[in-house]
Amino acid sequence: MEDPPPAFSADRRHAVLKPPADSEAIRPEPAELFRDNPVSLSTLRELEGQSVLAAGQFSFNQVVELCKLSAILEKIEVWPFHPLDGKIAVTAFFEASTRTRTSFESAILRLDGKIISIADGSTTGQAKGESLQDIGEMFNAYADVIIMRHTKTEAPQQILENLRIPLINAGNGSGEHPTQALADWYALLKWNPRLAEPYRRGTPKLNLGILGTPGSMRAVKSFLLMALLFKDHIRKVTVISEMADPFGEEVTEKLKAAGISYQVTNDVREHLPTLDVIYMNSIAFLGDSYKNMDSRFKLTAESPLKESAVILHPLARLDELDTSLDKTSHNLYFSQAHGAVFVRQALLMSVLGRLKALPSFVNLEDPES
Amino acid sequence: MEDPPPAFSADRRHAVLKPPADSEAIRPEPAELFRDNPVSLSTLRELEGQSVLAAGQFSFNQVVELCKLSAILEKIEVWPFHPLDGKIAVTAFFEASTRTRTSFESAILRLDGKIISIADGSTTGQAKGESLQDIGEMFNAYADVIIMRHTKTEAPQQILENLRIPLINAGNGSGEHPTQALADWYALLKWNPRLAEPYRRGTPKLNLGILGTPGSMRAVKSFLLMALLFKDHIRKVTVISEMADPFGEEVTEKLKAAGISYQVTNDVREHLPTLDVIYMNSIAFLGDSYKNMDSRFKLTAESPLKESAVILHPLARLDELDTSLDKTSHNLYFSQAHGAVFVRQALLMSVLGRLKALPSFVNLEDPES
Amino acid sequence: MEDPPPAFSADRRHAVLKPPADSEAIRPEPAELFRDNPVSLSTLRELEGQSVLAAGQFSFNQVVELCKLSAILEKIEVWPFHPLDGKIAVTAFFEASTRTRTSFESAILRLDGKIISIADGSTTGQAKGESLQDIGEMFNAYADVIIMRHTKTEAPQQILENLRIPLINAGNGSGEHPTQALADWYALLKWNPRLAEPYRRGTPKLNLGILGTPGSMRAVKSFLLMALLFKDHIRKVTVISEMADPFGEEVTEKLKAAGISYQVTNDVREHLPTLDVIYMNSIAFLGDSYKNMDSRFKLTAESPLKESAVILHPLARLDELDTSLDKTSHNLYFSQAHGAVFVRQALLMSVLGRLKALPSFVNLEDPES
Repeated sequence: MEDPPPAFSADRRHAVLKPPADSEAIRPEPAELFRDNPVSLSTLRELEGQSVLAAGQFSFNQVVELCKLSAILEKIEVWPFHPLDGKIAVTAFFEASTRTRTSFESAILRLDGKIISIADGSTTGQAKGESLQDIGEMFNAYADVIIMRHTKTEAPQQILENLRIPLINAGNGSGEHPTQALADWYALLKWNPRLAEPYRRGTPKLNLGILGTPGSMRAVKSFLLMALLFKDHIRKVTVISEMADPFGEEVTEKLKAAGISYQVTNDVREHLPTLDVIYMNSIAFLGDSYKNMDSRFKLTAESPLKESAVILHPLARLDELDTSLDKTSHNLYFSQAHGAVFVRQALLMSVLGRLKALPSFVNLEDPES
Repeated sequence: MEDPPPAFSADRRHAVLKPPADSEAIRPEPAELFRDNPVSLSTLRELEGQSVLAAGQFSFNQVVELCKLSAILEKIEVWPFHPLDGKIAVTAFFEASTRTRTSFESAILRLDGKIISIADGSTTGQAKGESLQDIGEMFNAYADVIIMRHTKTEAPQQILENLRIPLINAGNGSGEHPTQALADWYALLKWNPRLAEPYRRGTPKLNLGILGTPGSMRAVKSFLLMALLFKDHIRKVTVISEMADPFGEEVTEKLKAAGISYQVTNDVREHLPTLDVIYMNSIAFLGDSYKNMDSRFKLTAESPLKESAVILHPLARLDELDTSLDKTSHNLYFSQAHGAVFVRQALLMSVLGRLKALPSFVNLEDPES
Repeated sequence: MEDPPPAFSADRRHAVLKPPADSEAIRPEPAELFRDNPVSLSTLRELEGQSVLAAGQFSFNQVVELCKLSAILEKIEVWPFHPLDGKIAVTAFFEASTRTRTSFESAILRLDGKIISIADGSTTGQAKGESLQDIGEMFNAYADVIIMRHTKTEAPQQILENLRIPLINAGNGSGEHPTQALADWYALLKWNPRLAEPYRRGTPKLNLGILGTPGSMRAVKSFLLMALLFKDHIRKVTVISEMADPFGEEVTEKLKAAGISYQVTNDVREHLPTLDVIYMNSIAFLGDSYKNMDSRFKLTAESPLKESAVILHPLARLDELDTSLDKTSHNLYFSQAHGAVFVRQALLMSVLGRLKALPSFVNLEDPES
């Protein structure tokens, strides 16, 4: 796509997302993903009407095309085209999360959709014992898509017994958090666009690291399961943790079957400097409880990081990820947070079948037209 | 009204409200109510600017025309006509109810109106002792209509001391729940459209039953008070309850004056099989407390129901209404829940004086045009 | 501005703001402020992109022009011009306040803007220890303006370390409440339009009084700091309080430097009858605690008020301001509450740079056109 017409350029709005002048935080140029590289609408149309429950449901092509569309949505003002006109989303946060809820709500509002907001499950019928099956039947009449976070891992499966509109899983107990994984990989694809292409022999492969022992595993689990799509670009996954087997067989078996070397260690000092991408988890936010964290698992500007290493963290954070890293070139986590809104926009437009709202100046490959 | 032009047909959206193929749950065809039967706009205009406080405030004609309009709103996409453009509703749920609040919010958003949402009274000035009179004066400047649920029966009367915009009562203490009654009778009118016409001698009359001992009487009370409008079609009201006089004189005197036979009994086994319509109350949801319920007052697929009997239940439910009934032809309660959104749309369009937004292909009788 | 074209007159909507026929409460005519008195757009453009943190940041001209624009917004329907189209505001009420939050939300919705609502801080990451700095960075990607209330005085300064979109302070600990001060002075300017002009010798000056000992000082502090702009019209400020020095040096030094006489006394009986404007604070609403209040500091219709005295109170109130005053000509507090919505509209249009949305029939002075 060429630069969008000035009237629809989001450059002014995006100026606020640029790090301040004295910061070296990474802010990759989204256009790298779609310049001379049209978005395949036929691939995105595969998502129409689909629920989004797990990282593993996406194909490599779907992730790449979603990221290309996200990059376009970063660069243009899309609300004048009213993509979600007439569509209603329920943000059903039975497990409260202001960050994730407001991220989704921003995505929906920028697309000119409408929202019914349930910010907290404690005053709902759910809290009094109403079944998720009944809530699913009810939601059929209220909205066009449900975005749900719940403390119970089986919640999506229960609500889908009766729900007949798409469900987007925003976190289910110790299950998954697929849109967070999309945001994570969107940040990585912008940082290193070669990940979106077939691996070329001789290109350096990445060492991914997971730092800390997450009590709530779902964001990291989804991240690793989506990493399988990029397996050819990954040499090794190193989990730096006090636990012997934090992720269980589901994840470790898949990583091994994909040919990715996998190691669990508690030796931060030896392994941290080998990592290209460090995924740090919101360790402190475990539902309503807190864990005391060994200071070895904190990152600061003094940590022995590879010079080119980048850090991902789904945020919110306490002190496991020190603010001294915010202005360094290791900081990919602010870009990751900002990009999450656009990834959710791309996903909603695809799931709700509103890709046709994209303006004609956007570079699309559309066999139907 | 003929079938709406395809562009405005809601059939695609409504497909999700159809029960699954293996279900016999009742899904009446809304068009039965308005085919060859134009909606009387002059009747609905009587509601303009009115507050909605009690079931008994509606005339038979107003209920029938509201149901006809609701049926039309089930069949067409109305948001392209922006009926509530520029209008703001406050959903003031001092007593929290996610189900009812989200039902109203869906109704408003489908009409392209706007919402200020108060989901929970515990953090409001009300909780700290601010008077409802003062809140009414404040709301005059914020919105065009207030939808309020409150734990106190006298709340509507108090807020209306100063409120000078319409108030829709979404439940007041042990008072009434008039929009629930409208949803209940809308479901019954779709199931049996003859209820909307004068009674013809020889037609079977209905035996209505109320099952269980509601601690919070307001939904059932409103249902029975609205039943008075259909008295010629009703033979008897049987209340199956452990209490001797659950509804008090207000209701029983009116039923008697209307010529409806009325009995209170605790003999489920004898009376349940005589009932045509069984109204089951959300027995378990009594504010924040729960009652242990005698299992005689639960309904399951094994209960001795008349073959053609239909069940209403305002939901949410615990186990008093067993899921084994969901796929039977006794299940009118899912249709009842779905229809509530359209009834609330019809009411809001009428109260806010926006009937003129209805498109010209809708079959209306309008002396003013 | 001449009367607006009938289609855009807000007279019908505003009818509900008129006090009932048996009331003598003050309802000043907004048009007095702008008749033959065009709004200076160049003055209001100075506010574009600015955060609103403290009463003292506004110049006299800015306050007067904001009040003139507010008066216009009281008289016309502005939503057909979609002033905030495409703009998103977050109402971030880490300290809950239904009144102030819904006032802002009404302002935004009447301007056709969109809202992400955080009604209560207790379920947010903030409650769990997430820093306001991180929340600021997050908000950069979600919205175009943040409206925040917080229990901590230093909250605006903390969030502004990373927030790069405008912040409107809706109350910060014991700091300020600048939009409340704007609403207060808007009510006073409508009541006495001469305050908007240079003081003319011989005109009576005002005696302002502050009644009661506020635990939470911010609304009164902002009111007094904005009073400095009108110093030539003010003879004296009398604080009737049990405390010796309720406002501290910051305020008292500034009042003295402005030549305004300042006295603190606990003698209600002697001083109350001298006051022209009595500012009564929401004494009872001190976070979650209550103070027992000496009945000397309550106002009722029996209080020895000057006949022409007017009362301001930011509301909510308990019994410190008796309802017996509501229908008297001392009641300026209802007008104050109603006007707050329009002042917030004027401020948002200016801060978000959307003054060009004003229709051409509005009387504007615009050097740029």
